[in-house]
Amino acid sequence: MLEGLDNNHIGMDSAVIDTKIPGVKLVQTTDFFYPNVDDPYLMGKIACANVLSDLYAMGVDTCDNMLMILGVSQQLMEEDKPKVVGMMLAGFKDLATEAATFITGGQTVKNPWFILGGVATSVISFSDLIMQVPVSAQVGDVLVLTKPLGTQVAVNAHLYLLPANEEKWKKISGIVSRDQAIASMSRLNRTGAILMKKYGAHAATDVTGFGLLGHAKNLVSNQHANVDFVFHTLPVIKHMYEVDQIVSFRLSEGFSAETSGGLLVVLPKAKAMAFCEEMEAIDGWPSWIVGDVLSGTKDARLSDKPRIVECEQHSL
Amino acid sequence: MLEGLDNNHIGMDSAVIDTKIPGVKLVQTTDFFYPNVDDPYLMGKIACANVLSDLYAMGVDTCDNMLMILGVSQQLMEEDKPKVVGMMLAGFKDLATEAATFITGGQTVKNPWFILGGVATSVISFSDLIMQVPVSAQVGDVLVLTKPLGTQVAVNAHLYLLPANEEKWKKISGIVSRDQAIASMSRLNRTGAILMKKYGAHAATDVTGFGLLGHAKNLVSNQHANVDFVFHTLPVIKHMYEVDQIVSFRLSEGFSAETSGGLLVVLPKAKAMAFCEEMEAIDGWPSWIVGDVLSGTKDARLSDKPRIVECEQHSL
Repeated sequence: MLEGLDNNHIGMDSAVIDTKIPGVKLVQTTDFFYPNVDDPYLMGKIACANVLSDLYAMGVDTCDNMLMILGVSQQLMEEDKPKVVGMMLAGFKDLATEAATFITGGQTVKNPWFILGGVATSVISFSDLIMQVPVSAQVGDVLVLTKPLGTQVAVNAHLYLLPANEEKWKKISGIVSRDQAIASMSRLNRTGAILMKKYGAHAATDVTGFGLLGHAKNLVSNQHANVDFVFHTLPVIKHMYEVDQIVSFRLSEGFSAETSGGLLVVLPKAKAMAFCEEMEAIDGWPSWIVGDVLSGTKDARLSDKPRIVECEQHSL
Repeated sequence: MLEGLDNNHIGMDSAVIDTKIPGVKLVQTTDFFYPNVDDPYLMGKIACANVLSDLYAMGVDTCDNMLMILGVSQQLMEEDKPKVVGMMLAGFKDLATEAATFITGGQTVKNPWFILGGVATSVISFSDLIMQVPVSAQVGDVLVLTKPLGTQVAVNAHLYLLPANEEKWKKISGIVSRDQAIASMSRLNRTGAILMKKYGAHAATDVTGFGLLGHAKNLVSNQHANVDFVFHTLPVIKHMYEVDQIVSFRLSEGFSAETSGGLLVVLPKAKAMAFCEEMEAIDGWPSWIVGDVLSGTKDARLSDKPRIVECEQHSL
C-alpha cells in the first residue's frame, strides 16, 4: 500500500471498493519489487505468488484478472533479454494458472534495475468477502502462521557478507541454501485464504517487507477489541536462525523482512489445530500456532523466550 | 499493454474480463512511465490522465478505483523527496477527483529513475460497455482526433538538441513552449468517452507512444471490415511542425510519440461534426475530422499531402 493514500482502508492488504453495481465489491492490490533470486522462471513464480498474496490475506481466494508490471534492466545483454524476460513471464503465467487466474495485460518499460510485479483484482458479491472487516480478534484467539520465516536471510545473506566479510561467509556458506526459501516464496497462499473462511478466522494479513512483528503490529492496531498479539514461537527455514546470528537480519526479533511470506491468521483457539492440519494435508507444508491474543493495548510483541522451530520441506 | 500476454484482447486499450458475477465485466489497464516535465504537480496530473485514457478509449467513462505506481529516484536529494513526491501525489489525486474517481492504494519503491503511473479499474454491467468490440469501422466513416499532436516534440526538443546542437536549438528555442503541451497532456479524455456513446462510435483508441499512425495501424488491423484509415489532416500544437523540421520526431510522418494524447474515434460521417462541436463546447478544446475510412487492406496511412493544422489553446 502506498502510504498516505489509503484513507478508507488503512492497514488492509487490498483495497475494497464499492462499485456502481449494488452488492458488488472490487478488491484489488498491486505489488512489485526487485528480483531476489537468480533463476528468472522461479522469480516470475515468486512475483506472482507475492502479488496474489494480498488478495488471499483478505480471505479472497479467487482472482479475476492479473496485470503484469515489468521493468527490463538495461544492464542485461541485449541478446539475453528475450530469454530472461520469456522465462519470467513463463514463471508468472504458470503460477497464475495454478491460482486459476490469468494475465490479460500490463506494462513493460526499460529501467536501470529489473522490476517485477503486478496487479491482482477480484470482483465479488459482498457476501463472498470472507472477512468483511478483518478486525475481530478476541482475547483467547490464537495466531497461526502458514509459512516459515527466513526467506530474505536465505536469499540475501551472501549480498550482506561478500566480498567484505569472507570470514563470516565461511562460517555459514555450507548451510545457506536458497532452495527451501525459493520453494516457500513461490508457494501460493490460496489454501490459507480458502481455509480462513471454513474455520472462521477473525483477522489476517500476509507477512512481507515489515517482517512478522511489523505486520502483526499493523494488524493488531486495527482491531476493534483491546488486544495484544504475543508470539511464543518463531518457525524458521532450517539453518536460518543460525545464519541470522551471523548476518543479523533481526530474524530472532521478529523483524526480518520476508518476500512472499505466509499468512498470519487469527483463529478461535478451538479451530486452530484443525486449520493447521488441513493446511498441511492440502499443501504439504506445515503451519504453526505461533502466538496468543491477550488482553492489551493493540500492540504486538514476542514473548520473553520465543521458541525457534526449524522447518525443512522434503518433497520439493 | 504487455506484448505477448494479451491473447484474448489483442489491440484493445484495456483488458475486458468476465467476472464470477453474471453480466458483470471488469475493465482495467495499467500504465507507467518516466517524468517528462519538470513540475511534479503537473507531472502527477499528466500521469493520471494518461492512465485513465486507456479506459476512456474503450468508451468506459467511469473509473471505480485507481492504484498508484511510484518509483522515487535515488538521485533526488533526501530533503527534496517528501516535497516532490507530495506534489506528484497532489496532482495525481486532483485529476482523479476531476475524473470522479479516487486512489485507494498502490506501491512505491526506490529506483534509479523516477517512475510514475497507476492502474485504473471499472466494474460495469455488460450493457454499459459502450463498444463491446471496438472493431466496427465501415467504409464511409470518418476519423476524429480529440487532441493536437506534438506533445513529445514540445517537451523533449531540448533533450535531443542540447548540449550538442546549440546551433539548431537557437533556431527553435524562441518558439518551443511546453505550456500548450502540458495543458493538453493533463486534460482528461473523459468527455470523448462519454460522447463516443452518444454519437455511436464504431471504434476508438488513444494516441500515445506509437504516434497517431502507429495506433491507427493497430486499430485498423483489428477491424472486421476490410478498411483502410487514411489521414488528410494532422492537427499539431502551435509551432511544433516547425520545431519538428529541426528535431525530427517524425511528426509530419504521423509517428511522433505522444504522452497522454487524444482519442482517435471512428464515427459515422453524419455524426462527426456534431461530435466535434459538442467536444469543444464541453472541454473548450477543438477536435478535428482528420481522415476517412476507405475500402482497403486494414492498413493506415497519410494521404499524399496531409494538411497541417496548428492549434493554440488560449484559455489555459
